Amino acid sequence: MRIVQKYGGTSVGNPDRIRKTADIVETSLKAGDEITVVVSAMSGETNRLISMAHEMDQAACPRELDALVATGEQVTAALLSIELQRRGIRAYSFNGAQAGFITSGNHSRARICNIESHRLIRHLEKGEVPVVAGFQGVDEDGNITTLGRGGSDTSAVALAIALKADRCDIYTDVDGVYTTDPRIVPDASKIDRISYEEMLEFASLGAKVLQTRSVELAMRFNMPIHLRSSFESVDGTFVVKEDETMERAAITGVTYNRDEAKVTIQGIPDHPGIAANVFGPVADAGINVDVIVQNVSEQGHTDITFTVPRADYASTMALLKESCERMQARNVLGDNTVAKVSIIGVGMRSHAGVAKDMFTVLAKENINIQMITTSEIKVTVVIDEGSVDQAIRSLHATFGLSQSAS
Amino acid sequence: MRIVQKYGGTSVGNPDRIRKTADIVETSLKAGDEITVVVSAMSGETNRLISMAHEMDQAACPRELDALVATGEQVTAALLSIELQRRGIRAYSFNGAQAGFITSGNHSRARICNIESHRLIRHLEKGEVPVVAGFQGVDEDGNITTLGRGGSDTSAVALAIALKADRCDIYTDVDGVYTTDPRIVPDASKIDRISYEEMLEFASLGAKVLQTRSVELAMRFNMPIHLRSSFESVDGTFVVKEDETMERAAITGVTYNRDEAKVTIQGIPDHPGIAANVFGPVADAGINVDVIVQNVSEQGHTDITFTVPRADYASTMALLKESCERMQARNVLGDNTVAKVSIIGVGMRSHAGVAKDMFTVLAKENINIQMITTSEIKVTVVIDEGSVDQAIRSLHATFGLSQSAS
Repeated sequence: MRIVQKYGGTSVGNPDRIRKTADIVETSLKAGDEITVVVSAMSGETNRLISMAHEMDQAACPRELDALVATGEQVTAALLSIELQRRGIRAYSFNGAQAGFITSGNHSRARICNIESHRLIRHLEKGEVPVVAGFQGVDEDGNITTLGRGGSDTSAVALAIALKADRCDIYTDVDGVYTTDPRIVPDASKIDRISYEEMLEFASLGAKVLQTRSVELAMRFNMPIHLRSSFESVDGTFVVKEDETMERAAITGVTYNRDEAKVTIQGIPDHPGIAANVFGPVADAGINVDVIVQNVSEQGHTDITFTVPRADYASTMALLKESCERMQARNVLGDNTVAKVSIIGVGMRSHAGVAKDMFTVLAKENINIQMITTSEIKVTVVIDEGSVDQAIRSLHATFGLSQSAS
Repeated sequence: MRIVQKYGGTSVGNPDRIRKTADIVETSLKAGDEITVVVSAMSGETNRLISMAHEMDQAACPRELDALVATGEQVTAALLSIELQRRGIRAYSFNGAQAGFITSGNHSRARICNIESHRLIRHLEKGEVPVVAGFQGVDEDGNITTLGRGGSDTSAVALAIALKADRCDIYTDVDGVYTTDPRIVPDASKIDRISYEEMLEFASLGAKVLQTRSVELAMRFNMPIHLRSSFESVDGTFVVKEDETMERAAITGVTYNRDEAKVTIQGIPDHPGIAANVFGPVADAGINVDVIVQNVSEQGHTDITFTVPRADYASTMALLKESCERMQARNVLGDNTVAKVSIIGVGMRSHAGVAKDMFTVLAKENINIQMITTSEIKVTVVIDEGSVDQAIRSLHATFGLSQSAS
């Protein structure tokens, strides 16, 4: 099989870890697979480089930041190649430009436009192992670009697609995606197979195991991802096309995010354009709004409630107090002790009443639901932060996700 | 004027030094000059990267070592660009590939074949400042190469030639070339102008201020070099074409090298091929032989004496003891407490008797000369290490090199 293996920062974080990573590559080659490696910078290295830049200028130009941090992956690629060569494996390092990653020109968050992969394919056909610096490329003028934090996952998936690989293996420091956080529910179980859609929901809900973009890309080109640990050689979680043959429970997992704050503007005179008035200044300040709920209230007035990352709570409240006066709204309320809990599962599509079951469980536990949003494969509630663990445990048990239950 | 400025490792060794370097660039721009910058890695960085590689494999492959260490200059180029931009200067970093340095493919000691300078010229024509990573390039297959230690000097001179610059300024931690080592002769004076030929002799004799290759290149294309300090804004030493209008003393400077050992094979049966027999094994062991003297001795036997770096003394002695038996030579003698002292000057060509004057001075000081070699603009003697300071002081005074004398 032709496989692209991606190793994250902790998997190449020091010489000993690089040797362990080389063990995995060597084992795969011996099993007859054709391997291309994509590496991240050593853990901590990107931050070290950025802090050097910030010591020169806090507002350092993105073009130069990209040229600077792209060296991190180039260093790891060379070191891993050296270790593989020591074992008699013909490995060669490539930075983004050498590997043919052509990207858009927006520095620090470039998108991959094209991978000119003929050079890597030539090496693969000779039985050699390309070791590619992830996270980076060059724009059409040859300027060095980076894909943004975690972009190495996206590099790996894109390269797997370009090389027509059979699979993209993402090696990291966790051994897969779990039905929920094992620190809260000790018998949470590893999910063997998960659909791209579910993985996207997990990724966007704080399960920081795979970059959202990489999953979107894999989904579009139907590239199987195997998310696994570089610390133990057991199968992890396969991220694959939703498969009708998969027998699915209604729910695949329960996620949460404590990093939430809730803001409510009460009594806004209700006429067209109020949403723009409320969210315009917030967006201009670069604050990411998440769950939004609008109710019609009495006599031509309405209330709008939404959540923001907790770090942006104070500035959001300040912005809204200004808007409030301007819009002649009655009042602004806030709460920075809320959290989000979500249940996720493609099984929801065929299992009716999943949302109702969730609400029933929470009611039984006497947990007050403050906000609700739903998508086709997800139900999210905003609740008091203090009730998160209790909510997760009861949902995890009720939906049959415990290891004992499977 | 169009000027290429090259800054060595100590000139960019930390954020504070980078800011000082940016001061110099800014001042030059304000003076109306068109500046292209070439930078080395921060002092210590290349060694740090190499030791990482050696922790993986002492015999790390040169291709990967080059990819690894080339990141050092890329980091400095980005950091200096960030600092220049902070000051409102439109500066852009370029690694070797981006700057168009095409080299031979012999890793870790590549030679520059060509510089595709159109991209940098486009920036210069827009009034912008290219900041180029020195020491590196890519071969015609796009593999990253380095020019060997100190190669940034060569990068700078080659780039100055490609850009048709008026001058190449090499900024370093010394303020020029001195008539001799000021630690030995406190009133040694800075040489204002020195010819390429003399500079080559200084460089090859341990005055480690400029890489020999960079001087050869400058000489070939008649590119003036200004060797100067990045720590104080005074003129340094101009390295220029030998100029007939320069009024020259017989001697420009006195240099020395204590890192020498002397080896003699006595009583070698004298027939064709003995030099090959003696030096073959030494060269095969990668040992650099310097001064060589062969005397005809009595009855068809000859003696050969030569010097090697002191670190290679023991292994050279061992090799020669083997050769000695094979060649039926009488004996091998060695001395690792010798040193070389040279006088250098293009003025020698027109001043007769300079060598004789040197020998007379040393005789007066009661210093025994063990070996002599001469070139058109240099006389070198090998003497006992203990007499070096005395020899230098008397030669420096006799040839009128002291500041008080000029």
